[in-house]
Amino acid sequence: MRAIRHFLSLKDFTKDEILRIVNISIKIKDNFINGDKIQPYFKNKTLAMIFEKSSTRTRVSFEIGAYQLGGMALFLSNKDIQLGRGESIRDTARVISSMADMIMIRTFEHNKLEEFSSFSSKPVINGLSNEYHPTQLIADYITMLECGIGIIDDACKYQILRKPVVCYIGDGNNMAHSWLMLASKLGFELRVATPKGFEVDSAILELAMQFAKHSGAVIKITNSPKEATLNANVITTDTWISMGQESQKEEKIRQFNGFCVDTDMMNLGDNAIFLHCLPAYRGYEVTDEVIESHSSKVFIEAENRLHAHKGIMTFLEEENWKK
Amino acid sequence: MRAIRHFLSLKDFTKDEILRIVNISIKIKDNFINGDKIQPYFKNKTLAMIFEKSSTRTRVSFEIGAYQLGGMALFLSNKDIQLGRGESIRDTARVISSMADMIMIRTFEHNKLEEFSSFSSKPVINGLSNEYHPTQLIADYITMLECGIGIIDDACKYQILRKPVVCYIGDGNNMAHSWLMLASKLGFELRVATPKGFEVDSAILELAMQFAKHSGAVIKITNSPKEATLNANVITTDTWISMGQESQKEEKIRQFNGFCVDTDMMNLGDNAIFLHCLPAYRGYEVTDEVIESHSSKVFIEAENRLHAHKGIMTFLEEENWKK
Amino acid sequence: MRAIRHFLSLKDFTKDEILRIVNISIKIKDNFINGDKIQPYFKNKTLAMIFEKSSTRTRVSFEIGAYQLGGMALFLSNKDIQLGRGESIRDTARVISSMADMIMIRTFEHNKLEEFSSFSSKPVINGLSNEYHPTQLIADYITMLECGIGIIDDACKYQILRKPVVCYIGDGNNMAHSWLMLASKLGFELRVATPKGFEVDSAILELAMQFAKHSGAVIKITNSPKEATLNANVITTDTWISMGQESQKEEKIRQFNGFCVDTDMMNLGDNAIFLHCLPAYRGYEVTDEVIESHSSKVFIEAENRLHAHKGIMTFLEEENWKK
Repeated sequence: MRAIRHFLSLKDFTKDEILRIVNISIKIKDNFINGDKIQPYFKNKTLAMIFEKSSTRTRVSFEIGAYQLGGMALFLSNKDIQLGRGESIRDTARVISSMADMIMIRTFEHNKLEEFSSFSSKPVINGLSNEYHPTQLIADYITMLECGIGIIDDACKYQILRKPVVCYIGDGNNMAHSWLMLASKLGFELRVATPKGFEVDSAILELAMQFAKHSGAVIKITNSPKEATLNANVITTDTWISMGQESQKEEKIRQFNGFCVDTDMMNLGDNAIFLHCLPAYRGYEVTDEVIESHSSKVFIEAENRLHAHKGIMTFLEEENWKK
Repeated sequence: MRAIRHFLSLKDFTKDEILRIVNISIKIKDNFINGDKIQPYFKNKTLAMIFEKSSTRTRVSFEIGAYQLGGMALFLSNKDIQLGRGESIRDTARVISSMADMIMIRTFEHNKLEEFSSFSSKPVINGLSNEYHPTQLIADYITMLECGIGIIDDACKYQILRKPVVCYIGDGNNMAHSWLMLASKLGFELRVATPKGFEVDSAILELAMQFAKHSGAVIKITNSPKEATLNANVITTDTWISMGQESQKEEKIRQFNGFCVDTDMMNLGDNAIFLHCLPAYRGYEVTDEVIESHSSKVFIEAENRLHAHKGIMTFLEEENWKK
Repeated sequence: MRAIRHFLSLKDFTKDEILRIVNISIKIKDNFINGDKIQPYFKNKTLAMIFEKSSTRTRVSFEIGAYQLGGMALFLSNKDIQLGRGESIRDTARVISSMADMIMIRTFEHNKLEEFSSFSSKPVINGLSNEYHPTQLIADYITMLECGIGIIDDACKYQILRKPVVCYIGDGNNMAHSWLMLASKLGFELRVATPKGFEVDSAILELAMQFAKHSGAVIKITNSPKEATLNANVITTDTWISMGQESQKEEKIRQFNGFCVDTDMMNLGDNAIFLHCLPAYRGYEVTDEVIESHSSKVFIEAENRLHAHKGIMTFLEEENWKK
C-alpha cells in the first residue's frame, strides 16, 4: 500500500504544493461565489472530525466545507471520543479510518496526530495542535493574496502588488510556528516579536532556518514589537490565553505589556493589513479600534477558512487517490 | 446591503405574513404526506443551530427540517459555543453568518438574539428565548386549523368551523407572550389565566394591546382558570418548571394549585382541543387523562413543528433572497 | 396500523431472517467495494440516534451507514436527551418517531428499549443495552463467513469450510447473551466460559436452550477456558470493565485471572480466528500478541459493523414498508 499523504504541518509540503493548495482554494471560492454551492470533490465521502478541544470556526468551516464538496462530516467531541484514553490511538485510527474517508483532528499533543496518522488508512488533517495550525495559514495566505500581498506561481489569478513582509506579534505558539513554516517554505520575510520567555520553539525555528536557506526567506526573531512592525505589510497576532490556560491570565497580561496591536503599531507598518485567527480579545492582544478598522481583514480571513478547508480536502483527495 | 429579515418574534410580522408562513407550512406538510420527502427550498444550504439550552423537539425538527428542504443542519451545543463568552456576540455573528446560510438560536436572553441578528449577514431564527417561542406558535396554529379552528386568508385550504377562543392556563412565560402576539396580530380572542405573581410581562402585554386595537383581538388577563376556560375552544398550558428552575419546584407547585388542566376544566370549554408544546409533566400542569384524551392534539402539534420549521425557513429564503 | 418490526434482540428473529440480514449486509459491502458508495435503501430518510452511553464505533458506523444508504443520521447524546428523565419515554417515542424515519438507541436498561419501541411508530434498533448487542453479532457473523466459518442459506455467496464452534471467554454480559441468541437460532456450537459469579443470565440461557432444541445448536456453559477453547474455530471475548464499572476494576482483574485470551489459549483452538467487539484492553481480556496476530480479525470485524448496520436498516425498511 502506498503511503497516505496527510496534512499535519506545512513542513511536509513543498512551495509548489502549498501554492497548489492555495490555488485550489481560490478556485473553489470563486466558483462558490459564482453560484456553485456544491463542488463535488469529496462526493459521497465522509469526514470524521475529532475535537479534543472545541472550536467554533474549525468545526463550522469543516462541517460546511465537507457538505459543500458533496460529502458529509461527522462530529466527535471529547465527550464522544478521547484519543488514547480507553482505547489505544492505533486501534482508534484503524477503526475510524476503515469507515470514514478522511479524518480531521483537533487536539493538544502534536504527537497524537502523528501516531494516529501513522496507523490511519485515510488522510488525516491537523485541525489544530499545540505545535501547528496549518489550515489557518492557508486561509491567511488567501486573504493576503486578495489584498495584493504574496508570492505566487503562474496558476494564480491574483495580481501581486507587494512581496510579503509579515509581522507576528505575541505568543511564540502554534500560530507563530505555522507562520515560520509558511514564510520559510514560500520565501518571504517574517518577523516574530514575542515577550521574553515566550519565544518560539527552538527546534521549529531551526527547521524554518533550514527551509529559509533554500527559499530565500528572511526570518527575524525579536522581543521588540516596534522593530518587527516597521514597514511590515501584514501584522498579525493571536490570543495570549489559549483555552485551558485561563489560570495564567493575570500573569500573562503583565508579561505581554507592550504587545497589544494598537493603531500606533499599525501606523508603523507600510499600509499594513491586520490578520487574526480569532477569537480576539479586544484590549488584550489587539485594540477594538484596530480589529474594527478598514485595515482589519479578520472576518474575510475567517470566511476564507471555509474555502481553504475545501481546498485542503480537495488537494488530499487528488494527492492520495487521483494519481 | 438590504436589511436581513429575521424570525425573532411574531411582533415583527404582519397578519398577512404570519398567514403566509402558515400556508407555506401546510403546503409543505401536504406534499410531504403525498410522498415529497424532499422539497428543496433550502437546497444545498446550511443551517447552523446554536443551542445554549438543549431541546429535543426543536433540535430534531430543525435538523430533519433542513434536510427535508434539501439542505443540511449543523448542531452547536453549549459545549461547542457559548454566545458572548470568550468571543463577543458580534464577532461570532459575523463569522458564523459568513459560512452558514441561516442560523437558529435557542438561548435564554432575548437580547442576545437581537444582538446576534443585528450583526448577522444571514437570517436568524429564535428557537426559544426567555421572552418568546414563535416557532412553536406556527405549529400550534397549524394544529388549530387542522381542527377547524382559526382565522385564515383566501390561500388557506382549510375549512374553518370556529373562530378561535384560546385559553392559556399557567405561567406568564414565553409561551404566554407568544400567544399574546399571535392573537393580537391575527385578531382572535385570547384569555391568559396565571396565578398571582406569575402574570405576563407588562411591556409585552401593552404591545399586544396596541396590536389588538388594529386587529380586533380580544385579550383577557385573569387569575381565574375557570373564567378563562369557559366556552374556550382551545385550552393550552406549559410546564411550570422550565429547565434550570428545578430548585423552585416545590414552591411553584403550591403557588400553581388550581391551575392543572384536568377533565373538569376541559369540560368548561366548548368542545375544546388541548395543546401543549411538550415536554409535559403529568399531574402538574395537566393530568394524564387530559393529555391522553381524544381532545388532546399534542402529538400532532409536535409533529407539526417539523413542517412549521420548514415553512419558516422557506419563508425566510423567499423574503430575503427571492425578491 | 400494522405492528412495527424493530431490531432489539436476535431472539425476535428466525434463522431465515437472520441469514437474510446477513446476506443483505454482504451484498451491500460487495457493492460498496465495487464503487457503489451510496446505495439508496434509506433514501431521503432520517435516523435519530440516541446515545445514553457514548460509543465511537456504533456512532460512526450508523452515522456513516445512514448516509451511505442515501439518508441522514441525527446524533442525540445524553446531554441532548435522557430517556425517561423530564419527559416520559412514551412521549419521547411518540414525538421522535413522528419526525424521524428510524431510531437507534444505545442505552443501559433493555426495558427502556422495549418501552420506547412499543410507543414508536417507526422501527427501533438496539445499538447496545445491558442485555443484548445484536448489531455487533451481524458484523461478527459476516466476519466469520468471510473466513469460511458459518452456516448459510442458498442465497449466500460464501463457501463454507467449517461449521462454527464458537468459544466466548469472559464476562457473562450482553455479548455473551447475544452469542447465545445467534448460536441457538442458527444452530451451531457455542461454549461460554466465564469466571464463577459472572455466568450469563439464567433466563436468557433458558431461552437459548429452547431455541437450541429446534435448531440443533449445542450450548455449553463452563468455568474452564481450556475446556471451552479446545478445537474451537472462533475464539472471542469482551472487555471486563464496561463503561461506568471502572470502580470494580481491581477486583475484577483478580476474579478474571486465567481468562485472558493469550497465544496458548488460541493454540488450543482449531486454527481459530479471534474476534473482539472493541475497544480492547491489551493485557486484560486479550494479549497484544493475540490481537495483533494474523488470526485476529478484529479490524475487519469493526469495518463490517458499517456494512452490517446498513444491512439491518435495509432489512427493517423492507420488512416494514415494502411488503
